[in-house]
Amino acid sequence: MNTKMLNEREIEFLLYELFDTDALFTRSRYQDHDRTTFKEVIQTAKNVAEKHFLPLRHTLDNQQPTFDGEKVHIIPELKPALDALNESGLPSATADYEFNGMQLPPIVANLAGVYLTIAGGTALGYSMLTTANANLLQAHGSDELIEKWVKPLRDGRFAGTMAMTEPDAGSGLADLTTSAVKADDGSYRITGNKIYISGGDHNLSENIVHLVLARVKGAPKGVKGISLFVVPKYLVNNDGSLGDRNDVALAGLFHKMGGRAQTSTALSFGEKGGAIGYLVGEENHGLAYMFHMMNEARIMVGTSGAALAMGGYQYSLEYAKNRPQGRLPSCKDPLSPPVNIIEHADVKRMLLAQKAYAEGALALVMLGSQLSDDEKTAQTKEQRAYAHTLLDLLTPVIKTWPSEYGTKANDFAIQVLGGAGYVNEHPIEMFYRDNRLNPIHEGTTGIQSLDLLARKVPMGSMQGYQALMAEINDTIKDATSHEALNDYCQRLRSAVATLNHTTDKLLTAMGNSRTEGAESIDQVLANSVHYLSMFGHVVVAWLWLKQAKIAATTLPNANHESEQHFYQGKLQAAQYFYRYELTQIQQWASLLNELDDTCHQMQANWF
Amino acid sequence: MNTKMLNEREIEFLLYELFDTDALFTRSRYQDHDRTTFKEVIQTAKNVAEKHFLPLRHTLDNQQPTFDGEKVHIIPELKPALDALNESGLPSATADYEFNGMQLPPIVANLAGVYLTIAGGTALGYSMLTTANANLLQAHGSDELIEKWVKPLRDGRFAGTMAMTEPDAGSGLADLTTSAVKADDGSYRITGNKIYISGGDHNLSENIVHLVLARVKGAPKGVKGISLFVVPKYLVNNDGSLGDRNDVALAGLFHKMGGRAQTSTALSFGEKGGAIGYLVGEENHGLAYMFHMMNEARIMVGTSGAALAMGGYQYSLEYAKNRPQGRLPSCKDPLSPPVNIIEHADVKRMLLAQKAYAEGALALVMLGSQLSDDEKTAQTKEQRAYAHTLLDLLTPVIKTWPSEYGTKANDFAIQVLGGAGYVNEHPIEMFYRDNRLNPIHEGTTGIQSLDLLARKVPMGSMQGYQALMAEINDTIKDATSHEALNDYCQRLRSAVATLNHTTDKLLTAMGNSRTEGAESIDQVLANSVHYLSMFGHVVVAWLWLKQAKIAATTLPNANHESEQHFYQGKLQAAQYFYRYELTQIQQWASLLNELDDTCHQMQANWF
Repeated sequence: MNTKMLNEREIEFLLYELFDTDALFTRSRYQDHDRTTFKEVIQTAKNVAEKHFLPLRHTLDNQQPTFDGEKVHIIPELKPALDALNESGLPSATADYEFNGMQLPPIVANLAGVYLTIAGGTALGYSMLTTANANLLQAHGSDELIEKWVKPLRDGRFAGTMAMTEPDAGSGLADLTTSAVKADDGSYRITGNKIYISGGDHNLSENIVHLVLARVKGAPKGVKGISLFVVPKYLVNNDGSLGDRNDVALAGLFHKMGGRAQTSTALSFGEKGGAIGYLVGEENHGLAYMFHMMNEARIMVGTSGAALAMGGYQYSLEYAKNRPQGRLPSCKDPLSPPVNIIEHADVKRMLLAQKAYAEGALALVMLGSQLSDDEKTAQTKEQRAYAHTLLDLLTPVIKTWPSEYGTKANDFAIQVLGGAGYVNEHPIEMFYRDNRLNPIHEGTTGIQSLDLLARKVPMGSMQGYQALMAEINDTIKDATSHEALNDYCQRLRSAVATLNHTTDKLLTAMGNSRTEGAESIDQVLANSVHYLSMFGHVVVAWLWLKQAKIAATTLPNANHESEQHFYQGKLQAAQYFYRYELTQIQQWASLLNELDDTCHQMQANWF
Repeated sequence: MNTKMLNEREIEFLLYELFDTDALFTRSRYQDHDRTTFKEVIQTAKNVAEKHFLPLRHTLDNQQPTFDGEKVHIIPELKPALDALNESGLPSATADYEFNGMQLPPIVANLAGVYLTIAGGTALGYSMLTTANANLLQAHGSDELIEKWVKPLRDGRFAGTMAMTEPDAGSGLADLTTSAVKADDGSYRITGNKIYISGGDHNLSENIVHLVLARVKGAPKGVKGISLFVVPKYLVNNDGSLGDRNDVALAGLFHKMGGRAQTSTALSFGEKGGAIGYLVGEENHGLAYMFHMMNEARIMVGTSGAALAMGGYQYSLEYAKNRPQGRLPSCKDPLSPPVNIIEHADVKRMLLAQKAYAEGALALVMLGSQLSDDEKTAQTKEQRAYAHTLLDLLTPVIKTWPSEYGTKANDFAIQVLGGAGYVNEHPIEMFYRDNRLNPIHEGTTGIQSLDLLARKVPMGSMQGYQALMAEINDTIKDATSHEALNDYCQRLRSAVATLNHTTDKLLTAMGNSRTEGAESIDQVLANSVHYLSMFGHVVVAWLWLKQAKIAATTLPNANHESEQHFYQGKLQAAQYFYRYELTQIQQWASLLNELDDTCHQMQANWF
């Protein structure tokens, strides 16, 4: 089935109606850009996606990389596709001109990336991790490191990875044991094992630059003793040419449920005496640097969740429009021709849910992209600080909500296709499998929920939280003038009140948790996942009210039928979200407000 | 990781505490049995599962069958495993002695089957479909058909399939077009294409018996013109020996997300002039016969959903008990050793959810097994009719709830393992993929929900519905004496009231739907999926109250610590279900009571 990956009208809507991307042209960094260059970049991404990745999608999923004990084998078609991507300049779209970048705003680059993710899935991971790796080094590396590593990374000659997880330290980074010993020449010798390293070995680039978390001998235990190192697959001579193989070996490949285009590796560092590594920044500050990459990666993960949701939505929509099957309950003639399944209310429900999730998630991750831009390039210091505060608060939500609900969207897409959704003759079950990693990597949903409730919400006297609520209230005020939106305004006002009440209750309980007789902090945080769900639903409901406001304002003046349909669809999806989704928060709020102890009290030996 | 598939204590609990299986010994059909024979059969199933299927599980998933244009290739280890299964006699466990059966009650046979499903997944499908095929023929075939086909099916020499779906008729059976023409010898010539036929071709048995739905030339259109035929892969001579190849050809294999042990085939009947078929029963009654097999298959699907949920629950439980990672929020010493992840409240939540889903689903499908037995072997005609009525009502719930929530359970199991859950070095992601078919085949969740609301609930002046509600009220009355269960009794009473109110509202609206100005039947049924969700949650809450009642009664007298833990676990899972799950029905009830028209009103061109 030949189907469009993305509705192009949605891109225009995001850039110029929901977000005021025009305003970026006044920033000096973006002075060379205009709507035309943005359009061209997005068109380029679409072309690369269609020409180079879409034809490989099925094969990449079916023929995952293999390891013969010496080398990794990846289907040979992938390298030319990645080369074409590098030639397009897209991987460095947001980078500075001096690093051969385009100085594009992240919101545009990330929207362009949606096409690539739908077409290439984790094949793009090789490139995305490389960019994030370069960004970290550029922010925290010495001039020497930047000169030696960032340029080839930006050019796509080298690829990058992020080597954190160890067999005994996944979510618990405090316990990682990979060690580093300083050598006389100022470099370090790295020894240890890392697992689930995406793109940890392959033959797609000249070299691989691992960013490795390790402990310098004698460093404090726990997270305060973690340092970050550049550990390349091949050493690089001073003239930039490749030198010897470093002491980094591939121990094996993992075989994943999805995301099969990208190798997931177990790596051994230092089996032959120590891999040579170069310290990034200062010793014992490694985790803070890694969070630079991690926060960026968390927005990427959310974007992947949203992109795959979009891909599944468009595909199942097209299928539903063209697949005749069954009759409506009202049909009095059982011999009449079958209707297309999009006419069945339950199929509409599954498509509306996908639309509400996918477009809601995409709006959320684009907000994240915009804030990550604003924190660096907004005009005033106050604006930059404001963006930073808001993004810091929202990062666990931006990472998690699109991952969880994007995966649910793909699940609905499978169900729309029925048996066809379950077979790999259609790409839907692959979208699902690819997406299912997103609630796991870069911090599981459980970890994100603790980060949100225990850290991000209370942080800075709740400055971020208050700012977000003020933004939401502004939107409600702004929308109240539309009679058609009154119901949503009221529902959102009430949801915000519920969230405020719950937040207050939980923060008070956290404060009291050391008092005798009070609930323990373990019990107070026991339902934090539901707090994240509630918080995420309020944020996405806010973004849907913004979208509905635009639709309600523009619809009366829309002349073209297709424009009318577009805005009608926005209004109906908002209605779906408010009636079928936002209504769920009451149940979560009750569990949270009661500090329900069912899970906390459960004992290991009762299972 | 070596982990038990199933908690054996749970089997005892189901057979002799939740269900009164002892009472079956008084039925003449089961007079040769006692607890010992039941135990032996279940032990046999466990042995066969562990010895023959568990070692193949990973390979069967990784090396799915291939088709070289002529033959299907399946890993050679499967045939001896299926032969061992046939030798054990388990596939004919419920069959009559005269067909080499064991005359075991379905509840015992199906519990034994849980081990096989966890170990072999859809490899067991070859055998299960064969049994269901034989059951249908035995119920509706002529003596001649029974003599010729049922015996070799029961012996496992022949395999059986169920050939309904066509490329243009999946859920809409009314539109199937495979045709049958009567020949002079009384047999028929079948022509047409069938897809998604499980076990449609392979080399695992001497012959394959397809039960094919087709239209006899000149038959009425729609479902009233469908007949059922035996169409074998090889013709069979009168002496029982195999004759010529019939005109049935494998057109291709589908590649499924899961369930990869079993071929899913596209079959062409009659490319060379017509496949020879033998009519089952009378012309034009085929769909009714097929429903014999389908209703049985629907309980099997539910059982598969529950079994895979159990498998994932046990595995992730074992993992969580042995995987150290992170510290509790209350831990004041970041350098203390990490705890096993089962100590984290959010991991307990995901395990409790699995326990509540898996054990709730297993209780539900065992209720279905018991009713399917009672409708045939209960002492009085009234008891048999009562069981039939209740089973008829519950079939869509028995099929759907374990499929939907069993899949959710597996999703939680993935999340408990984190990255390890996403790789096929552990079986969890396979359980998920295997389970994901269950909400699709044998009638999708959407189809089941229409069957429940529009057909099963109103049927027979709501006789089945009233009977179920009376059963639930009896349980509530029975449990009220336990103070610890008061809260659940109150919650379930209120849930039943909500269900009654909603049912009344919807049935009234259905009745009025032809009245001018009233909501159309399409709108009234638009949220039927949520009706099924609500109905299913009430039924499972009922079964959890029954379990909690037993636990509350037995716990004070339990001497062994392990017994105490078992009942504590039952009580805590019941608490989880009542607080975290049953509370969701309010939201569904609101949508249903308001006859919410969001989905119904959505237009195809607004998407």
